[in-house]
Amino acid sequence: MSEYATERATERVEKETARVEAFSDGVFAIAITLLILEIKVPHEAGHDLWRRLLGQWPSYFAFVTSFATIGIMWMNHHRMFNLVARIDPMLMILNGCLLLGVTFVPYPTAVVADYLGRDGAKAAAAFMAITYILIAIAFNLLWRYVSSPQRKPRLLRVPPEDAQVQAIRAAYRLGPLYYAVTLLAALWDAQMSVGLNLALAVYWAKPPREEK
Amino acid sequence: MSEYATERATERVEKETARVEAFSDGVFAIAITLLILEIKVPHEAGHDLWRRLLGQWPSYFAFVTSFATIGIMWMNHHRMFNLVARIDPMLMILNGCLLLGVTFVPYPTAVVADYLGRDGAKAAAAFMAITYILIAIAFNLLWRYVSSPQRKPRLLRVPPEDAQVQAIRAAYRLGPLYYAVTLLAALWDAQMSVGLNLALAVYWAKPPREEK
Amino acid sequence: MSEYATERATERVEKETARVEAFSDGVFAIAITLLILEIKVPHEAGHDLWRRLLGQWPSYFAFVTSFATIGIMWMNHHRMFNLVARIDPMLMILNGCLLLGVTFVPYPTAVVADYLGRDGAKAAAAFMAITYILIAIAFNLLWRYVSSPQRKPRLLRVPPEDAQVQAIRAAYRLGPLYYAVTLLAALWDAQMSVGLNLALAVYWAKPPREEK
Amino acid sequence: MSEYATERATERVEKETARVEAFSDGVFAIAITLLILEIKVPHEAGHDLWRRLLGQWPSYFAFVTSFATIGIMWMNHHRMFNLVARIDPMLMILNGCLLLGVTFVPYPTAVVADYLGRDGAKAAAAFMAITYILIAIAFNLLWRYVSSPQRKPRLLRVPPEDAQVQAIRAAYRLGPLYYAVTLLAALWDAQMSVGLNLALAVYWAKPPREEK
Repeated sequence: MSEYATERATERVEKETARVEAFSDGVFAIAITLLILEIKVPHEAGHDLWRRLLGQWPSYFAFVTSFATIGIMWMNHHRMFNLVARIDPMLMILNGCLLLGVTFVPYPTAVVADYLGRDGAKAAAAFMAITYILIAIAFNLLWRYVSSPQRKPRLLRVPPEDAQVQAIRAAYRLGPLYYAVTLLAALWDAQMSVGLNLALAVYWAKPPREEK
Repeated sequence: MSEYATERATERVEKETARVEAFSDGVFAIAITLLILEIKVPHEAGHDLWRRLLGQWPSYFAFVTSFATIGIMWMNHHRMFNLVARIDPMLMILNGCLLLGVTFVPYPTAVVADYLGRDGAKAAAAFMAITYILIAIAFNLLWRYVSSPQRKPRLLRVPPEDAQVQAIRAAYRLGPLYYAVTLLAALWDAQMSVGLNLALAVYWAKPPREEK
Repeated sequence: MSEYATERATERVEKETARVEAFSDGVFAIAITLLILEIKVPHEAGHDLWRRLLGQWPSYFAFVTSFATIGIMWMNHHRMFNLVARIDPMLMILNGCLLLGVTFVPYPTAVVADYLGRDGAKAAAAFMAITYILIAIAFNLLWRYVSSPQRKPRLLRVPPEDAQVQAIRAAYRLGPLYYAVTLLAALWDAQMSVGLNLALAVYWAKPPREEK
Repeated sequence: MSEYATERATERVEKETARVEAFSDGVFAIAITLLILEIKVPHEAGHDLWRRLLGQWPSYFAFVTSFATIGIMWMNHHRMFNLVARIDPMLMILNGCLLLGVTFVPYPTAVVADYLGRDGAKAAAAFMAITYILIAIAFNLLWRYVSSPQRKPRLLRVPPEDAQVQAIRAAYRLGPLYYAVTLLAALWDAQMSVGLNLALAVYWAKPPREEK
């Protein structure tokens, strides 16, 4: 009976955390799927349709880049929350700031899709890079809050000194810097900047430390 | 065996409640993510793109305000349903009225995004405030129904006299009044009204009473 | 150990059913939330904005009607699946036909929102009514398949003679007829037809038989 | 106690897999529901509205075809993941490629809806067929990775020699070839190509081998 009671209490706290995770997952899944709505069907293309579809490569490029970036952010969010045992109001607010950034992504994606390859491309690429810098900062704030050694009761399943916790902290610290590089690149060449974002998404796919 | 049977029965009722929660969470998550679709890419901006993107501040302001408001409503819905042990058809209908309001939010948001800073701004801000008043009323009706001492069998996990139940009731009672103030503000200054909505979202983030 | 093994096996089948329910819930939640995207912000209304917003009553009417209808369909889907213990491929296909109808609803809603109160209103209302007739037929086909006494192994938790099963069957049989009345009404008066759909949604909210 | 500990460990791994499944399900559910947004209300049709609604058959045809295709892909994804016991980063990346294809589907659907029955129809149908070929290839890559006999620790619940695993492998191998036929058909007749896609969706609904 006592073992069952403990199990129920653990379930309650886990349900709490699971609901925040599920809500976040929903936002990630919706944001990643809405990206496609920003690609517009060419009007009155007639027999020229095939060429017009190929000519939309900036839209496909922006779509794939943002899809990969949101996908990788989801994987990293997932890794973080695997280590989270309990949530508090401040964690929910910081997580909300992160999700605010994620839901915003379809807009710079649409701007890049519209302007890549013509006047305004650099501004569009810079706008995308700034969005990603802000999201990377939100990831850092969230993880620093969650993994702070001062936090009582502890929000993590593991002690803050755990190697996995430190590995995530070290990896995230570089995030804003990396996206600052893509921002600088945008001032020079818009397509290279978007390409760097895509390369970064592939880079972040690698777990901070080999997970068992 | 008997303990297991009890556990299964409890699970059935909890699954029922969990499904309403999950559906509501889905609606909140989708509504909050759809907000971004209301921001439109500037057409043919060319080298002027950066300035045009900055000039869209009313869209960003409306987006952040509605994101914060829906986010806080989700947190409060979450707090309410943490105390709900079972649902009945009337609860589902009142919850449906609340969700009707939440799914409507992207529309006044789009109206504010379009009209803030130009003729029609006051009407737009008033439209947003009225939407929030109606949602605040729906929160009150739902909580009054759920926490009514007359309800048999009890829908709450805790007795209606519980301090947490009373704290939520006291906090929600003020909701429609607060949003009535933002409505009045809209008649005077549209941006101040939208700003008050954002301030209220931050205010509601604070739990009615410190949760353990 | 043996009790635990049985529990695991039951969990596997329930997980299967739960996943179909969760997918269906997702589709209902998304369809109900997408409805708002069909209301368009009045362009260049200026000081006339307030009157233009009020003048959009057909859009609000169509929105509320479809919201209530999808909401009630979700509740009924929920009641059905509460009695379903296992799924098979045919059930998934019939459920898919039902969801096809539900995801289609935002389109006739947009048509009604656009044409109510001007030329074409009757065609728009008829289009909405036909959509609802088809969905009501899909509900009947699904329930008849699930509750057929010939089905081995049984898909329901309860025997097909169960009063609740029969009550649902009796209630659903009338669905297509009721919506046929709203179709006839559309030929006479479009607004009355849409109003009847809304009234039907309220009517269907009542559970077929008092649930314990 | 030891049995309980084993149960908890199993639950952790299953939760991991369940979260990837839930995220994928969300993406499938959203993509299938967004399809409807691509059908546009006829403008200023007046008394001609009914005929204009009927004249939109290419939109309905494209909608039903993509709905059926995404629905069947979901069912197959479901069957695959029923056999998956654990996930690793590479599986998540391959699953991400599959989801990238699924979220892209609304775009070729909109192109077909717009161009079927007029100049550009063949290019539109070919565009849809190519999308489906790429998704079919992603299904193959994912299943080959998951079911590879070299994989240690095993990702499947069952040994790679299991008849069900082999049946899925055999069935998927033909996917790209089947959609290559619809691509060839597109060069000859666009409507026949779209119709073949719909027929293939019905064909794939049949489970690779009768599931118990």
